[in-house]
Amino acid sequence: MRIGVDVMGGDYAPQNIVLGAIESLSKISSDTSLVLLGDKPRILDICRQNGCDASSFEIVHTSQVIRMNEHPVKSYTSKKDSSLVAGFNMLAKKELDAFASAGNTGAMLTGCQTALRPIPGIMRPCISAEMPLLNGKKMLILDVGFNTDSKPDMLYQFGYLGSIYAKEMMGIENPGISLLNIGEEEDKGDMVAREAYKLMIDSAHYRFCGNIEANHLFSGDIADVVVTDGFTGNVLLKQAEGMYGLTQSLDVKHKFFEGFNYESYGGTPVLGISSPVIIGHGSSSPLAVANMVLKAESALNNKLVGKFIEAFSYEH
Amino acid sequence: MRIGVDVMGGDYAPQNIVLGAIESLSKISSDTSLVLLGDKPRILDICRQNGCDASSFEIVHTSQVIRMNEHPVKSYTSKKDSSLVAGFNMLAKKELDAFASAGNTGAMLTGCQTALRPIPGIMRPCISAEMPLLNGKKMLILDVGFNTDSKPDMLYQFGYLGSIYAKEMMGIENPGISLLNIGEEEDKGDMVAREAYKLMIDSAHYRFCGNIEANHLFSGDIADVVVTDGFTGNVLLKQAEGMYGLTQSLDVKHKFFEGFNYESYGGTPVLGISSPVIIGHGSSSPLAVANMVLKAESALNNKLVGKFIEAFSYEH
Repeated sequence: MRIGVDVMGGDYAPQNIVLGAIESLSKISSDTSLVLLGDKPRILDICRQNGCDASSFEIVHTSQVIRMNEHPVKSYTSKKDSSLVAGFNMLAKKELDAFASAGNTGAMLTGCQTALRPIPGIMRPCISAEMPLLNGKKMLILDVGFNTDSKPDMLYQFGYLGSIYAKEMMGIENPGISLLNIGEEEDKGDMVAREAYKLMIDSAHYRFCGNIEANHLFSGDIADVVVTDGFTGNVLLKQAEGMYGLTQSLDVKHKFFEGFNYESYGGTPVLGISSPVIIGHGSSSPLAVANMVLKAESALNNKLVGKFIEAFSYEH
Repeated sequence: MRIGVDVMGGDYAPQNIVLGAIESLSKISSDTSLVLLGDKPRILDICRQNGCDASSFEIVHTSQVIRMNEHPVKSYTSKKDSSLVAGFNMLAKKELDAFASAGNTGAMLTGCQTALRPIPGIMRPCISAEMPLLNGKKMLILDVGFNTDSKPDMLYQFGYLGSIYAKEMMGIENPGISLLNIGEEEDKGDMVAREAYKLMIDSAHYRFCGNIEANHLFSGDIADVVVTDGFTGNVLLKQAEGMYGLTQSLDVKHKFFEGFNYESYGGTPVLGISSPVIIGHGSSSPLAVANMVLKAESALNNKLVGKFIEAFSYEH
């Protein structure tokens, strides 16, 4: 298995990315190869400074960098020799099995949409985040921002993607899927949520548990997977991240809130496309980068894409 | 000034409501009369048990109660002699100047829409919440749930309503209005947010400060007023409330997070209708009820509705 890592993407690239790749070496299987894409001399320097034998990696030299604040589509289409674009091209040509980057999120989404195919039967890919619950378990939230405008059928499918992810990646046997809404009753919510509820309540594909309100999200024992549109999901994810910041500023720290620190966890997997892609937070720490690599490896080991393909074959 | 209080609305009604009304007596002006609507014998009992002279209030006896979980429209239209419907009818006939209830939120919104007129020029009323900032100031968020589906022009108007509220009720001289979005750039967001941005950036009515992301909401110094659609705003408000719950459960309490405890604060004012209406949380404490009364009095003292009428006269 070959996992590509975009060494030039992220606020602290290439330093944090190479350090994270080094950190992951002791945790991945001996069958997994890490392919670092970026400025080769700088990668070699960082390896040398940190006592790492650079031959542990395969290095693909690229000459361009897509910066964090660049226009996603413009930069993606013009910077053909950037580490980010090179990663997607290798993935499309099956020269990589998975790709991870903490770079420009918009450019990553552009790559998912232009270089990769959606899985047949899936209307739109989405991104997801594993968030902590008070009972110590984790909950998957999706979509957390791939799509800005969502339709009810998309939300229905996110529920199915999430249920498969929860089963295969989180080890939850018969996951409960809830719809984020502004009331528990079926007629609550905006048009998209109301119509999505009608589709989900009749689902033969997953166990739908009804609506969940945001004040009950993290108390646990309600839902394993929470479905929402990408706009609301992104606001929710960022609000949780802001809460972590507040607990830090106010010095009322608790391990639980570290789970909201999306800089530290292993990135958000893009679900519904033909290869595993993991998008990390711009400020990813070396640990977060290592976790991204492990998440990509886990998606490959669990044959996640194959499970999605099989599941959505009913659509065509 | 006559402020009506729905004594039968709320999870701990009538007890908490009467206690809150008693608590507010020492804080309101001698010109303000409190009109309690509900079961007269029970109101008299609670007054007696708490050493309060019931003649401090005017009591309007009603025989019916709209329960918290009843269908809003059905209960509103069928229970003509409920305290909630009676309050709206008195307000419509100018027998009350303002009305506050911690009862069934949906029935309250039904009352606002059926018994009261929207202010001419205002497309849709909205509800708002004052939330705490790290710098000790407060920020107004609207719409937090009156409207489930919003249009860009509605969001534009919420900005204007919010700027007037911030000036008149919160004493902020030239408030900065931000749009909640999933990125800072103008082309970010769903269709509603993108179009609302275009209207707000050209505003001659208020000082627009661009997009704000949810991770920066409470750090302060960015926005005095945050505009969003009612679905996202309601999720945001409830997520903040849930965070308060988490800090309590994990015993990492801090005064700041109490500001997210929407059970304790003085209700959310409905903006854009012909009379001040304050909607409280179902679990309102006596203090929260007293704060609702004070908020209603403040809206009347500041002639808030008159300011809205004047401001929106440009629309017709």
